[in-house]
Amino acid sequence: MTQTLTTTDQWLAEFGEALEQGDIDRAVEMFGEQSFWRDLVAFSWNIVTVEGRAGVRSLLEGTLETTRPTGWRTTEEPTEADGITTAWIEFETAVGRGNGLLRLRDGKAWTLLTALYELKGHEEPAHSRRPMGAEHGVNRDRSTWLERREQEAAELGYTTQPEVLIVGGGQAGIALGARLRQLGVPTIIVDKHGRPGDQWRGRYRTLCLHDPVWYDHLPYLKFPENWPVFSPKDKIADWLESYTKVMELNYWANTEAKSASYDETTGEWTVEVEREGMPLTLRPKQLVFATGMSGKARMPEIAGTDVFRGDVHHSSAHPGPDAYRGKKAVVIGSNNSAFDICGALWENDVDVTMVQRSSTHIVKSDSLMEIGLGDLYSERAVASGVTTEKADMIFASLPYRILHEFQIPAYEAMAEKDKDFYDRLEKAGFWLDWGDDGSGLFMKYLRRGSGYYIDVGAADLVANGDVKLVRGQVSHLTEDSVVLEDGTTLPADVVVFATGYNSMNGWVADLIDQETADKLGKVWGLGSDTTKDPGPWEGEQRNMWKPTQVDNLWMHGGNLHQSRHYSLYLALQLKARYEGIETPVYALQEVHHTA
Amino acid sequence: MTQTLTTTDQWLAEFGEALEQGDIDRAVEMFGEQSFWRDLVAFSWNIVTVEGRAGVRSLLEGTLETTRPTGWRTTEEPTEADGITTAWIEFETAVGRGNGLLRLRDGKAWTLLTALYELKGHEEPAHSRRPMGAEHGVNRDRSTWLERREQEAAELGYTTQPEVLIVGGGQAGIALGARLRQLGVPTIIVDKHGRPGDQWRGRYRTLCLHDPVWYDHLPYLKFPENWPVFSPKDKIADWLESYTKVMELNYWANTEAKSASYDETTGEWTVEVEREGMPLTLRPKQLVFATGMSGKARMPEIAGTDVFRGDVHHSSAHPGPDAYRGKKAVVIGSNNSAFDICGALWENDVDVTMVQRSSTHIVKSDSLMEIGLGDLYSERAVASGVTTEKADMIFASLPYRILHEFQIPAYEAMAEKDKDFYDRLEKAGFWLDWGDDGSGLFMKYLRRGSGYYIDVGAADLVANGDVKLVRGQVSHLTEDSVVLEDGTTLPADVVVFATGYNSMNGWVADLIDQETADKLGKVWGLGSDTTKDPGPWEGEQRNMWKPTQVDNLWMHGGNLHQSRHYSLYLALQLKARYEGIETPVYALQEVHHTA
Repeated sequence: MTQTLTTTDQWLAEFGEALEQGDIDRAVEMFGEQSFWRDLVAFSWNIVTVEGRAGVRSLLEGTLETTRPTGWRTTEEPTEADGITTAWIEFETAVGRGNGLLRLRDGKAWTLLTALYELKGHEEPAHSRRPMGAEHGVNRDRSTWLERREQEAAELGYTTQPEVLIVGGGQAGIALGARLRQLGVPTIIVDKHGRPGDQWRGRYRTLCLHDPVWYDHLPYLKFPENWPVFSPKDKIADWLESYTKVMELNYWANTEAKSASYDETTGEWTVEVEREGMPLTLRPKQLVFATGMSGKARMPEIAGTDVFRGDVHHSSAHPGPDAYRGKKAVVIGSNNSAFDICGALWENDVDVTMVQRSSTHIVKSDSLMEIGLGDLYSERAVASGVTTEKADMIFASLPYRILHEFQIPAYEAMAEKDKDFYDRLEKAGFWLDWGDDGSGLFMKYLRRGSGYYIDVGAADLVANGDVKLVRGQVSHLTEDSVVLEDGTTLPADVVVFATGYNSMNGWVADLIDQETADKLGKVWGLGSDTTKDPGPWEGEQRNMWKPTQVDNLWMHGGNLHQSRHYSLYLALQLKARYEGIETPVYALQEVHHTA
Repeated sequence: MTQTLTTTDQWLAEFGEALEQGDIDRAVEMFGEQSFWRDLVAFSWNIVTVEGRAGVRSLLEGTLETTRPTGWRTTEEPTEADGITTAWIEFETAVGRGNGLLRLRDGKAWTLLTALYELKGHEEPAHSRRPMGAEHGVNRDRSTWLERREQEAAELGYTTQPEVLIVGGGQAGIALGARLRQLGVPTIIVDKHGRPGDQWRGRYRTLCLHDPVWYDHLPYLKFPENWPVFSPKDKIADWLESYTKVMELNYWANTEAKSASYDETTGEWTVEVEREGMPLTLRPKQLVFATGMSGKARMPEIAGTDVFRGDVHHSSAHPGPDAYRGKKAVVIGSNNSAFDICGALWENDVDVTMVQRSSTHIVKSDSLMEIGLGDLYSERAVASGVTTEKADMIFASLPYRILHEFQIPAYEAMAEKDKDFYDRLEKAGFWLDWGDDGSGLFMKYLRRGSGYYIDVGAADLVANGDVKLVRGQVSHLTEDSVVLEDGTTLPADVVVFATGYNSMNGWVADLIDQETADKLGKVWGLGSDTTKDPGPWEGEQRNMWKPTQVDNLWMHGGNLHQSRHYSLYLALQLKARYEGIETPVYALQEVHHTA
C-alpha cells in the first residue's frame, strides 16, 4: 500500500468515524484553516460551498443528523503532486450514494467535493440494471414497447398530469428531461419551436458551437468518435432531435407556455399552454425554467428607433447577412454575438461598423482549447483517462472562491502566446480586458455570462480594418444612421443590437408575475463583486439547479457542460420530492438583487 | 518483463524478421503442426483461413511479396491459461495497419488472426483526426455543413455517380454505409421501404431482437447505457433511422432496384432504380447486396394452395395475430419464426397447431446469454474489459474448423442446466436436436442459418399443449385444412409457412440474371458437410464480405454483430479499389453449389 493511499484511507476512516459518532468538533479539525467543502445535494439538498472550519461546522450542524453518511472509501489509487494528495471517493448517505473528490494538504482536507449520484431504491435502469426489452414467457395481456409509448404520449398532459413541466426544449431542457425519464419522473418538455434543435437551426447560417465536442456530450449517449470538434449548428440540431426520440422524451414542440400560477394549498402549478394552437391546462408539481441562461434579450431604449427606416433588431433575432449584401450595417456591441455577426456580414460583402461600448475579453479559440480546456476536455484528456464524467467532477471540485487563482496563469500564458494578435487589436483601437482580476473567460462566464469573444477569425477583420471599429456610446438613431454621444454619425441600412441579455428571472416575470420574479431574484453570477456580478459573495451560481425562494420553481441551463452535469443534481432533487423523500435544504439562498 | 511477454515478443520478432527476409521456410516452422491462420484482408485481400504449415506456406507464397509486413508488436501484456499464451498484436503492411490475436502453444503459433483496420493515408477522421466542424478564419466563399450536405444529396446519383451502390437499407446496409461515409467513398443505399427501420417496424408487433444489446452495437456509435437487453422492434427501428441521419448517409428510402447489369469494358454497373416512383439510372463501380442474409423466402409448392379459402403466406409476410382471434391457425415449421408466430397467435386467442417437419435445436435465451455469450458480450464482459471491439476480435480469432469443439461443452452445460425443460418438450412429442455434432446454435447459424429456436417463452406452450404439435410432412391443402402425408387433417383459417429462406444469390438472379447468380454460387455456410451445409470445406462463410467470382459484386449481411464487424473489412476492400490501391486476391473462392 502506497503512502498516499494510506494517508487518504486513514483520513477517510477517521472522518467517517467522527461523522458516525456525531463528533462534529473532531470532523471540523480534520479540515485545514483554508478549506472548502462543496456539496452537490448529498448533505445539503442544495448546491453549496462552505469555507473554512466555521463553514464545515455549520454544514455539519445543519445536515449531519439527517444525512448519516457512511462507507467512505477511495475508488482508485490517490495521486500526489505539489504537496497535494488527490483522491476519488465514494460514500453513502441515509437515502443515497455519493461520490466526490478529496484534496489533502498537510494531512488536512483542503477541498472536499461531495455529490449525490443516485437514490437508494431508485437507481437508474442502466448497465446491469438496463431493462430486458423483451418480456419473456407468454402473456395474453402483453403490450409492446410501441403501444406503451403511444399510450403514455396520448395520456400525459390530458388524462394524467406530469410531475415536472420543463419550459424550454433546448439542450438544457432535453438533458434534464432525459435524466427524469431514466428516474421514472413523469415529465413534459414544452417548446415553441417546430422541432427539437430548431433553437439552433434558426440562428445565422455559419454558426458553429464555440465549445469543443468533449465538453458538450449529453447524458447517457456520447457523440460518436467522428463528431466534429466544433459542431455546426444544423448538425447539433439534428443530434438533439434524434436524442429526444432515442431517449423517449415527452417533447411537445409547437407549444407555448402562456401563463403559470402556483396554488400553495394543492401544491400544484397551473400552467396554461397552447399546443399546436390548442389551449390546454397542465398541473405539474414542479416547474422548471430552461429558457436559456442568458435570459431575455436586453434591448436598450434608444431614441429614434421609431424613425430609423432600415432594419433594427437584437442579435438574437438577427436573420443572417443574406438580405444585406452591398449595404451598410452597424453592430452595437463587441462580444461573441457582435463578432460572429460582423464576420458573417463582412463575408457577404456588407459594409460593417462595430460600435464598442465597453472593454471586451478576447481569446483565440485554439489557445483556449489548448491552454484553458485541454487538460480536462480534449482528445488528449480522454487518452489519458480523463473521461467527460471525471472532467466534470474535477471541474466541479475547484471552489469558485479560488478558481480565479487557477485561471490567471492560463490567461497569462494565452496573452504571451498570442501577443502579436493582441498588439494588432490594440493598435486598431480595440479596447481589451482580461476580466477585473485577469482571470479570463471562464470566470467572466460564471460571474456575468458576458463580456468576451472566443475568436474564430473575426477579430482579424477588426484588427486589419475590414470591419470598421468605433468606440463610444449610442446617442440616438436618425432615419438612416446611428449617432454616437460624441456626434459621430454612422450611416446604416441595418442596426444590430448585440447588447446581451438580462437575468433569467425576466422569463419568470413574463410567465408568472413580477412579484414572483422579484422573490426569486437575480439568476446567475457568484456575487464576486466584479463588473456585472455584485456582491455579497454567494459561493455558487445564484438560483441555478437548486431550491430557490419560490417553492417548486427551478432554474436550469448553462452551456452543454453545465446542462449535462448539473441536470443530474436537479433531477435527483426532483426525484426525491416525487418519491416523498425528505429533502431538508441547508442554507437556502437569500435574495440580494432582483435583476 | 514477464515470461509470456518475453516469449511472445521473441516469437513476433523472429516472425517479423523471417517475413522481412522473405524466409518463408523459417516462418512456416514457427507454426504448430495443428495451426490456423485467419486473415481478414490484411495479407490476402480476402477473408480466408489457412490450416497447418502447408496452409501457412501457401498464404505466404501467395501474399508476402506484396504485403511486406513489418512492425509486429504486442499492444498489451499477453495472458496465459491452459498452456496457451494469448496476445493482442499490431503490425503494418505496405499499404495499411493491422491488428490481431496470436495464440502460442509450446512456443509455436496455434492460431493467428491478422486483420486490416486502416489504409495508410486514408485513416478515418475520428478521435484526434475528427473534423474541426467550424472553419476558423474569414472566408467570403464559406459554405456551411448544411449547404454541403444538401448539395451532395441533390447531386449524388444525378449529376455525380456513386462509387458504391448498396441494395438494401437494413442494419447491414446501414453499417456498411456508415463506414464508407467515414472513408470518403461516395455511396448510395437504396431501400424499398418508406423509412430506415421499416424493415423492423413491419414485422409482427411483439417482436424483439433475440440477440442482446452488447452483441448488437453499430459502428462508431454504441447504444446508450440504458438500452434494453433485447431491443423491441420499433425501438431498434427508430435507432436505425436516427443513426442513418446522424451518420449522414445517402439513404434513398422508397427506392426499388429494378435491374442491374455489368459492363466489363467500362467497369460500371448499370442499375435501374425507381425512386419515389421516378425511374433513374445509377452507374456505380461496385454493387453490394445487403438484402438480408437469409435470402429469399422459401415457399414450398404445395398442392391445393389455390383452393384453400383462408389466408396463406410465408412467415416473412405474416401480418401478426390480430386478424385471427378466435380462429384456427396452422404453422408449418418449428424454428424461430414458427415459435414466435405461434406464441403471438396463442396470446391472441387463436387455436394454433405447429407442424414439425424436422428436428429443431432449442436453447433458452437466458442460458444462451449466460453460457453461450456471457464471456464476450454481456455487462459482465464489458466490466472485465472485454469491449465489443475486443469481443469481435476474439470471436473472429477462433477458427471455424475447430469452433465446434469450443461450442460443444457450452451446449452440454445448457442441456444439463435446463434438463427439465427438454424432458418436458420431448414428452410433448417435440423432436429435438443439438446440431449434427452437438455443437449447438452458433454453428447451426454459421453453417445453415436455420434449424433453431432461441426460446423466450413459446416453447412452454408446445410443452404444455397450449400450442398443439403435430409431426409430419405437408401433403396438400383443401378448402379449409392442411392435410399431412399420413392423412392427418388440420382444420385451418390461416396457414403460415415458416419454412425458411433460400440462398441470397436468389436476389442476384432477380436483379441481374440467373447466369450471374449461378456464377456467384451459394451464399453462406462453411462447407461443413453437415445438414444443409454441403462440402467441400470452405473454411469461411461462402461469398460473404469478400471477392466473389462475379467482378465488383459483393454480398453483405448477417446479424448485427456480423454487420458491424465484417462491414469494416468489406469497406476497406471497397475503399482500396476506389483509391486504386492494388488488391491482389489470394485464394478466390471457387463455386461448388449454385443454391
